[in-house]
Amino acid sequence: MNELNAIDRLTALLSKLPGLGKKSAVRLVYHILDADPAYARALGEELIAFHTSIRRCSRCGSFTENDPCPICADPARDGSILCVVERAQDVRFIEESREFRGRFHVLGGLIAPLEGVTPDRLRIGELVSRVRREGITEVILAMNPTVEGDTTALYIQKILKDSGVEITRLASGLPVGGDIEYIDRLTLSRSFRGRVRLS
Amino acid sequence: MNELNAIDRLTALLSKLPGLGKKSAVRLVYHILDADPAYARALGEELIAFHTSIRRCSRCGSFTENDPCPICADPARDGSILCVVERAQDVRFIEESREFRGRFHVLGGLIAPLEGVTPDRLRIGELVSRVRREGITEVILAMNPTVEGDTTALYIQKILKDSGVEITRLASGLPVGGDIEYIDRLTLSRSFRGRVRLS
Repeated sequence: MNELNAIDRLTALLSKLPGLGKKSAVRLVYHILDADPAYARALGEELIAFHTSIRRCSRCGSFTENDPCPICADPARDGSILCVVERAQDVRFIEESREFRGRFHVLGGLIAPLEGVTPDRLRIGELVSRVRREGITEVILAMNPTVEGDTTALYIQKILKDSGVEITRLASGLPVGGDIEYIDRLTLSRSFRGRVRLS
Repeated sequence: MNELNAIDRLTALLSKLPGLGKKSAVRLVYHILDADPAYARALGEELIAFHTSIRRCSRCGSFTENDPCPICADPARDGSILCVVERAQDVRFIEESREFRGRFHVLGGLIAPLEGVTPDRLRIGELVSRVRREGITEVILAMNPTVEGDTTALYIQKILKDSGVEITRLASGLPVGGDIEYIDRLTLSRSFRGRVRLS
C-alpha cells in the first residue's frame, strides 16, 4: 500500500511513544487528518524547535529554556534546602503540589548496576559540590520508594555522611484514600515503621 | 513558571489528541526530551508536511497521496463491488483484514439529524452517480451496527432501490470468541434474526 506512505510513516513514528500501540497511533493519525491543518503545523513546529529551545539547567539539571532555570534563579526560593529527585519531570510534579519552596537537584536516574547505571553516571558528584558550596542545611531525598530508589538514597546518605548536612527522605506509607486491605505488605510494613505519634 | 514555556506548549498541544489527558501528555513530552532529538525533528517534519501530502481521493473519498488512490487506480480490484464505509480509516481496517477485493466509497459520516448531519452533508450523491456510471452490481453497506449506521443504511437502500444494484450489509451478531452470557440483548436479537442454516 504505497499510497498510504505519509499516513504509515506518521503512524510508525507515533507508535514509538510510550503507551501508544499501533491501533491508538492509527486513531491519532486520522484524528489529525480530520482536524484543522493548523493544528498539525503548530505541533510539528513545536516539535522541531523543541530540543533547541529546551536545555538542562547547569545547576540543578532540570529542563529549562533559560540557564540557570527560573527555580535556581529565583531569590525567593529557600536555597538552604535541596530536594533530590530522580528525573526532571519529578520537579514538575513536586512544583504542582506547591509543597516545597527550596531548590532541586536532578540525579538523571537511579543506581541500577544490572542496567549499567553506576553512581558515576548520575549527577551525584554535582550534588556533593553543591552541598559544599551553597550552604545547604537539609537534603531531602525524594526518590520513589523502590529497590533502586532505596539503593540510591542509601548511597547518597553515605556520601554526604561527613558533610554535616541533615538528610531526610519523603515518608513512605499508606496513600491518602487507600485501603489497608489492598495495600501491599512492604508498604504496610513501611507505614508501621514510620508511624507518627499523635499525642 | 514562564521557564517551562516550550514544555507547556507541547503538553497543551498533545493533550488535545483524543485519549490523551494532561498526565499522559506530560509523560510523552518528557519522553521526547529524553529521546534522540532526531525523533522529535522527524515527527515534526512529518506533521508539517502531512496535510499537503495527504488529500482525499476524488473518486472514493479516502485519504491518499495520489489521486485517484491506489485502490481506485488498481485494475486488479473488482470494480463491480462497492463497499460503503463511514470513515476513511474504515478502508484501512478492511484492507488489513484482506477480506475484500472490490473498491470503496467513503461517506464521510453517518446521518445524524440531531447533530446537523443530514444526507446532503455526506457523499451519498457521489455514491448514486458511481453506481450509475461504474457498472456496479453489488453495494455492501459496511457501516457500524448503531442507530446512525442503521439509519444511513436504510436511507441508502431507499435511494438505490430503483437502480437495480444488489444491496447487502455486513452481518451483525456474536463476535468470535464472545460469550452469549455477556452479549447485549440487541446483538443477541440480531444474531437470531441473521441465523445461518448449517445443513
